[in-house]
Amino acid sequence: MTQKRIEEQVRFILEVDKLKEVYRQTLCTQSRRPENDAEHSWHLCLAAIVLAEHANEPRLDILRVLKMLILHDLVEIDAGDTFAYDTARMADQHEREARAAVRIFGMLPGDQAAQFRELWDEFEDRRTPESTFAAAIDRFQPVLLNCNTEGAAWRRHKVSEDRVVARNAPIAAGSTALWAEASRMIRKAFESSRPDPAP
Amino acid sequence: MTQKRIEEQVRFILEVDKLKEVYRQTLCTQSRRPENDAEHSWHLCLAAIVLAEHANEPRLDILRVLKMLILHDLVEIDAGDTFAYDTARMADQHEREARAAVRIFGMLPGDQAAQFRELWDEFEDRRTPESTFAAAIDRFQPVLLNCNTEGAAWRRHKVSEDRVVARNAPIAAGSTALWAEASRMIRKAFESSRPDPAP
Repeated sequence: MTQKRIEEQVRFILEVDKLKEVYRQTLCTQSRRPENDAEHSWHLCLAAIVLAEHANEPRLDILRVLKMLILHDLVEIDAGDTFAYDTARMADQHEREARAAVRIFGMLPGDQAAQFRELWDEFEDRRTPESTFAAAIDRFQPVLLNCNTEGAAWRRHKVSEDRVVARNAPIAAGSTALWAEASRMIRKAFESSRPDPAP
Repeated sequence: MTQKRIEEQVRFILEVDKLKEVYRQTLCTQSRRPENDAEHSWHLCLAAIVLAEHANEPRLDILRVLKMLILHDLVEIDAGDTFAYDTARMADQHEREARAAVRIFGMLPGDQAAQFRELWDEFEDRRTPESTFAAAIDRFQPVLLNCNTEGAAWRRHKVSEDRVVARNAPIAAGSTALWAEASRMIRKAFESSRPDPAP
């Protein structure tokens, strides 16, 4: 029994190695290559433990936040990354990802499959303090990277400052302090990319 | 005060983006490119939450395990990755990494710098159930990837089966079940790489 269980778990861990090949629009600050979902997920975990004290909810279950961040993008192994400003592809995003969740979490032993699915649903629904904070971190980190790569992903897709602000304002639901910081960074990034006014 | 604190924290989060450019000897199973430390750290976190039930210690503080795994490789931003079978470079590894820890954790506000340093020291010392399990996962995952990339990193550096077994046997201190699984995988990988005996 333990043998079969551990083999299923190991096959799952091997399967999700594929997350390292799912590339995002955001660039890494050093090499300027696109970031992948696996390193993005790690960066969110790191940011979450550093910034947890700024959550609006003072009694946050950080372990639950981390679990959600570790697994929130696994569905993209099948569904691919959907750029946050691509409204056409976002239309069927949840449907594609829900199908992926069935297959991928379904590789785990039943009790763990249910547990992971519950965590993913919680993250998607954003109705608990933990998922609201996890989602805030998931928005904050791309803002940070974009603001430190001359807004590369935003420029490339011609995303306006207004749309960046509208997309990221929900950070405030998880942390008003983080949203204050993010909105300052966004303003600065767009200011420095504007041509100098005519003399 | 909050403003200065959050700015220090954000600078730290930006600095550690560099971990995505520290490459390891182990290959990713899909593209067969070298894995980097950031995605490796994520994969360990994922493996830890899936496999925690196999820890020898039944009452493990998983949050502490995850925190250690999230930050255990940050020192490699300055010190570089040291291949686990490179005895020459391993000689001064801890010294190089300890210097890196001072600089990198030192970017955080004092209380957090101390907390992160404590977690890293605990991971390095391997004297608590949490660090022993975290270290087991940190050995198990490269074994899993190597066994699923035809032992690429081991072959390339001509590492024998005996050395792989000796290096990874400490997995048993964190989880005897995981070591049973890992030693089975290692045996199989070396068996299948041996030329067929003469008829």
